[in-house]
Amino acid sequence: MRTIGLVERNVRLLLAYDGTDFHGWQRQPNLRTVQGVVEDALQRLIGHPLELVGSGRTDAGVHAVGQCANVRIRSRVPTERLAHALNGRLPGDVAVVSAEQVSDEFHATQGAVRKRYRYTIYAMSCPPVASLQHRYAYHYWEPLDIARMRRAASYFVGTMDYSAMASSGCVRRTMVRTVFRCDVRREYQCVYVEVDGSGFLYNQVRNMVGTLLEVGRGRWEPDCVAGILASRNRVNAGPTAPAHGLCLQWVEYPEHLLKPPETTADIPA
Amino acid sequence: MRTIGLVERNVRLLLAYDGTDFHGWQRQPNLRTVQGVVEDALQRLIGHPLELVGSGRTDAGVHAVGQCANVRIRSRVPTERLAHALNGRLPGDVAVVSAEQVSDEFHATQGAVRKRYRYTIYAMSCPPVASLQHRYAYHYWEPLDIARMRRAASYFVGTMDYSAMASSGCVRRTMVRTVFRCDVRREYQCVYVEVDGSGFLYNQVRNMVGTLLEVGRGRWEPDCVAGILASRNRVNAGPTAPAHGLCLQWVEYPEHLLKPPETTADIPA
Repeated sequence: MRTIGLVERNVRLLLAYDGTDFHGWQRQPNLRTVQGVVEDALQRLIGHPLELVGSGRTDAGVHAVGQCANVRIRSRVPTERLAHALNGRLPGDVAVVSAEQVSDEFHATQGAVRKRYRYTIYAMSCPPVASLQHRYAYHYWEPLDIARMRRAASYFVGTMDYSAMASSGCVRRTMVRTVFRCDVRREYQCVYVEVDGSGFLYNQVRNMVGTLLEVGRGRWEPDCVAGILASRNRVNAGPTAPAHGLCLQWVEYPEHLLKPPETTADIPA
Repeated sequence: MRTIGLVERNVRLLLAYDGTDFHGWQRQPNLRTVQGVVEDALQRLIGHPLELVGSGRTDAGVHAVGQCANVRIRSRVPTERLAHALNGRLPGDVAVVSAEQVSDEFHATQGAVRKRYRYTIYAMSCPPVASLQHRYAYHYWEPLDIARMRRAASYFVGTMDYSAMASSGCVRRTMVRTVFRCDVRREYQCVYVEVDGSGFLYNQVRNMVGTLLEVGRGRWEPDCVAGILASRNRVNAGPTAPAHGLCLQWVEYPEHLLKPPETTADIPA
């Protein structure tokens, strides 16, 4: 496929995947990863080497219905046909929900200003396959007090050092992040923990959920969470909740990055 | 485990399973089947040979949230602990939702008076993993006219010979069955076809759905269904819809069969 002479476009992809059979987002040699599978399909379709930039890595087993990525391509395939063309080349557990041309400045990692994760707890004695949710919900059979969890969750909201919620191996320039919202609610068999943040440290959401579960089942008081956070020490937090309950819901970007450049060159016939 | 001297109980199990990784309900040598997996777990728990009787077979790939089965056991395990004890021995894609002692006359196959199946169609251009439904919904991207499908579905309701909807290889004493209700509705991305019947011929629901899809996409007129049924010839119906969209919802039994015998012997200490 000749791609020389074609104008480069910066395309944003909205991606969904069932993380069960992926070794996480990031490409790794000889392992099935989301980035690897989607990049390979893109490359076969577009015909030139390319790099798929994700909003962030998701761990092995974590799902997404609103992962964002961008890729720079030169191709005769119009942007509006890209999603359909790619989905024909992708396996059933990953899909491109939409593709749209964005500003040349758009970078999926650096531009993200807010992300939402949802953690699903199947809070029944019966296993979650009873509602066909065993791949997407963590089975927790001890009774949970939602009001206590909600009070504990309120301590997570703010701009602070989240070292106590970062699993070991997380080395970042700063451990300060912003959590805009941490909501706990019950719907039928499930308890959902939804967290909006500016970005997250390694395992941060899963450690927050593990801590909320200790409060919900009555082992810790809701107000303990303040002290755990202040300690900046991971050992004081609850256990890391399993990956399969976690799902990346959406990623927000500033409006001006989502607009395509004004002088979009026509695709040569 | 000594089971001699214990009184036999007839126990009804409500079962749920994700059919994706099972070769259907019925035990087959060297294949992973629902009956095989549950019977083996029961046998390990109870300690004597036993037979798990299902309300009917489900095909490879078909799911269930309300399959019914019964089993005659002699055991010190109280009926109310049976579900929990079994779930600890079952893999994550099958579970016992409940277990209760029933009349000695209860037979899950012969006693069933009504069954409900639900077929899920993911009616969007984007693949169903976008809502994490790729294992439980059939992706159908042609536009569907629900009103036409509903009119076509009305011809399925009644007591009649359903030969035209039975896949080859279905040999039964009579091809007459009763369909009490055949409902088509759209909710968000999905179209659901729900069918209540006295019992079903081989692939009957999937062939009914395949026929409704031909009407929904405009290839056939809704009123054609009357003629297809009258022909009693499978070749006139639509293609068999794939197994993974189908889920057994519940099975109904007459009240008197669900009552345990009045003189339930105590379980010896």
